[in-house]
Amino acid sequence: MGISVRAFGTLAADAPLSEMDIPRRSPGQDDVHIEITYCGVCHSDIHTARNEWLNSTYPVVPGHEIIGRVVEVGRNVKRFKKGDLVGVGCMVDSCLKCDPCRHHLEMFCQNGCTWTYNSPDPHTGGRTYGGYSTHIVVREKFVLKVPETIDESAAAPLLCAGITTWSPLRHWKVGKGQRVGIIGMGGLGHMGIKFARALGAHVVMISRSPEKARDAEDLGAHEVLLSTDTKAMRAQANSFDFILNTIPVGHEMDPYISLLRIDATMVLVGAVEPLKPFHGGGIIMGRKRVAGSLIGGIKETQEMLDFCGKHNIVCDVELIRIQEINEAYDRVVNSDVKYRFVIDMRSLKE
Amino acid sequence: MGISVRAFGTLAADAPLSEMDIPRRSPGQDDVHIEITYCGVCHSDIHTARNEWLNSTYPVVPGHEIIGRVVEVGRNVKRFKKGDLVGVGCMVDSCLKCDPCRHHLEMFCQNGCTWTYNSPDPHTGGRTYGGYSTHIVVREKFVLKVPETIDESAAAPLLCAGITTWSPLRHWKVGKGQRVGIIGMGGLGHMGIKFARALGAHVVMISRSPEKARDAEDLGAHEVLLSTDTKAMRAQANSFDFILNTIPVGHEMDPYISLLRIDATMVLVGAVEPLKPFHGGGIIMGRKRVAGSLIGGIKETQEMLDFCGKHNIVCDVELIRIQEINEAYDRVVNSDVKYRFVIDMRSLKE
Repeated sequence: MGISVRAFGTLAADAPLSEMDIPRRSPGQDDVHIEITYCGVCHSDIHTARNEWLNSTYPVVPGHEIIGRVVEVGRNVKRFKKGDLVGVGCMVDSCLKCDPCRHHLEMFCQNGCTWTYNSPDPHTGGRTYGGYSTHIVVREKFVLKVPETIDESAAAPLLCAGITTWSPLRHWKVGKGQRVGIIGMGGLGHMGIKFARALGAHVVMISRSPEKARDAEDLGAHEVLLSTDTKAMRAQANSFDFILNTIPVGHEMDPYISLLRIDATMVLVGAVEPLKPFHGGGIIMGRKRVAGSLIGGIKETQEMLDFCGKHNIVCDVELIRIQEINEAYDRVVNSDVKYRFVIDMRSLKE
Repeated sequence: MGISVRAFGTLAADAPLSEMDIPRRSPGQDDVHIEITYCGVCHSDIHTARNEWLNSTYPVVPGHEIIGRVVEVGRNVKRFKKGDLVGVGCMVDSCLKCDPCRHHLEMFCQNGCTWTYNSPDPHTGGRTYGGYSTHIVVREKFVLKVPETIDESAAAPLLCAGITTWSPLRHWKVGKGQRVGIIGMGGLGHMGIKFARALGAHVVMISRSPEKARDAEDLGAHEVLLSTDTKAMRAQANSFDFILNTIPVGHEMDPYISLLRIDATMVLVGAVEPLKPFHGGGIIMGRKRVAGSLIGGIKETQEMLDFCGKHNIVCDVELIRIQEINEAYDRVVNSDVKYRFVIDMRSLKE
């Protein structure tokens, strides 16, 4: 048995997003039924809506940075009650039994986790639909508590942009006494700066654009390093304990690798595509490392939200109405947003 | 004050190696004077003799896998006495004061370590000359003790091929219960198999050549995985805890990265040149890592030699006379050696 809810989605790669009705399952014993208040706009939403990853099944309803209020819970649900402020990120289910799941890495579930949209949905036999919608029904285990003290709308992107940058910073133990570089200053990079600063590191924003310097410092960067300034780059060679690389496309890696200290790591979180060739000697000299990281597990996402509540950290967002989504997509593609669009989902009911 | 000793070297990139005299300093208070008995032939010797790295200063006398007997020690020398069996590897000096040196990583000395050949020599103001020679004078700190129980000639390549593979296996804590892949079966790879096996890992030799299977098992591999067998490669995806990649040239990385488990590392020790592009998604999915490693520090080299003495591990070598060196170089370039040439340096006195 299911219900039908209002959403914004698309029926084809080249069609604009528009209003539509989508099925949601009726909440089961282990489910939380959420009325969505805000949903962030992630670049993945655009890739999927436009079938740029060639894996879209239409209709597509994007959105995996979801904030809302609980309207109803299944009878086995212990952690939530009606009225609670909650979040949903990139995943809505996984087997919870395999080795990665037992180690709180549900995103690497060996049986395949259920993504929040454009994913086969084992509950319905259909597809999952995301957060550009009035309501969503999610298994309790994949629902996050959102601190009531936080600005709800600005918290939405924490569910993807936040955890994507938080997880590698924590996994590689970034903290006091460390010199940390953040490459790129979009939705991911701006959160990387805030988190690295809050974790006690000396934060260097690494960018090609001199005009980003002031903004970077406002976000918490101690320094800005212009990657186009070869003299400055050479002066900072071998000086970074960790670099978080949020560049979303393939790019020259050698200049950034040269910044790493002995045994230091550069983690890629953005470039889900072929990297440009880099020189083996660059990692062999200095025993350096290049690694990847994908969002983060549910437990770690909760830890991040709790940390954000305690330290009053949210994203810098531009609030839009759902009717503005197609224009917002074009602006994201042109990097014309500081730093994340968030949709006020009440606009869908108007 | 210096002495002149007989050596085999070359005066130009396109000249064959031939007999010549080279200067050695007289042993100082902290030095060990060694009569060389055996010297391994490393591919770096050829790159340098032929100026393939474009950094050769002639004359070049190669050789950094040196075994010999102490003939004389300076008065401050404590660890060695006349007659001791000793080894010298890729380095003969470093500042010993900088951060990497204090952490036993002399190869990353911030003031530049002194390589065994083709390196500026702070002691003489000239250049260093390597092990294709009757004698060498080396600062005590850079002289290794070689267990008397070991086969001297077969121990020579431990000083470079040995430590190059030992160091990453130890640094990344390879041991029991782990599934470890060794890519490539030359001078480096064959030692990788022996060491990984001796450290208790389940060892999989990964090769393009079916004819290497028998040899790999003789060396200690539990299994052979043909990288050309896409079905076998797919079956072993996400199953390796660690991969040691000894391929000496740029190559496709994606197939090997796909073999790594979550959080596992592939370490490159051979490809000191531009790598081919690999897919960012391959490391992002599974939080995988690609790293480099360069030889190893002096302390770690001594630990390796002690381990080899205890476990009776040496290299598989083909012994040659120095007069055969030019033919041997051509065979190394054609991968026609199992697995390392070692020069009997007594042939130089004939």
